[in-house]
Amino acid sequence: MRLAEGVEWGVHSCLALSWLEDEAPIPAARLADIHDLPVAYLAKQMQALARAGIVSSTSGARGGFRLARPIREISLLDVVDAIEGGRAVTFECTEIRRRGPVGQVSDSSFSAPCGIAAAMRRAEDNWRAALKHTSLAEIGREVLAAAPGTADATRVWFAQSRNPVRN
Amino acid sequence: MRLAEGVEWGVHSCLALSWLEDEAPIPAARLADIHDLPVAYLAKQMQALARAGIVSSTSGARGGFRLARPIREISLLDVVDAIEGGRAVTFECTEIRRRGPVGQVSDSSFSAPCGIAAAMRRAEDNWRAALKHTSLAEIGREVLAAAPGTADATRVWFAQSRNPVRN
Repeated sequence: MRLAEGVEWGVHSCLALSWLEDEAPIPAARLADIHDLPVAYLAKQMQALARAGIVSSTSGARGGFRLARPIREISLLDVVDAIEGGRAVTFECTEIRRRGPVGQVSDSSFSAPCGIAAAMRRAEDNWRAALKHTSLAEIGREVLAAAPGTADATRVWFAQSRNPVRN
Repeated sequence: MRLAEGVEWGVHSCLALSWLEDEAPIPAARLADIHDLPVAYLAKQMQALARAGIVSSTSGARGGFRLARPIREISLLDVVDAIEGGRAVTFECTEIRRRGPVGQVSDSSFSAPCGIAAAMRRAEDNWRAALKHTSLAEIGREVLAAAPGTADATRVWFAQSRNPVRN
């Protein structure tokens, strides 16, 4: 079981957008350059973030992506759900309890959720609550604590690569 | 993101083994019959549970599976990890922070884990702790509360199908 790798891409890209917040909308190709990612696949993830209202997208020659709200108001869960394409879940109950001879002879209506699904849901709720209570602003601070200078380096690289020195 | 469907199969099969605890080892084919599951694939899951020490396996004409320890001493996490084939995780950090121009210009050694991975790990630890503190005995009680009679029906079906009435 693994979240899609687009989650890591999406979070890093949102952090980069927060560090470049004074810039015009950033095209997907430039966001992809920052982490040397395949443009087409990152663009797909960014469109998922746009559908979820995390970033806003503008089209045209000067189009691109910006954060749709302050980074402190975006939770890790927001990005996980957006990239996973809905409510991210860990377990899917296929109701095998109803199958086979035992499912047929039981008098029960099986109207309550299966105990396995209920226990899985409780654990999943703990996971989702922790993700919900972590903002991308907190993660950004932690990313910078681990790798100081990344925000400045992003801004410097972005400025230099936009206006290359011509001899 | 989803756990393998074998998790649901494994838990239900362990519960069935606990309800049939006075029986000889139960062959995979009979365990599969209980929930109308494909034998070969269930056998693979049962072998994973055996490797993890959750069930014991005996071979031969009267061989099969039994619980290796009391059901109250088997956690939901034990089964999840066994079926997933190791420590079940939700997120894999691919270290994209080191890639591209920003990863190269940073002065940091990136020795500390990335903030995204650290936050994901904290949420995952909450999930795993909840699974660890749920025993299959508790789940069995919850399964029976939702679908009363399932344990008795399992035993009755098992006895009848082993000794079919002959006219």
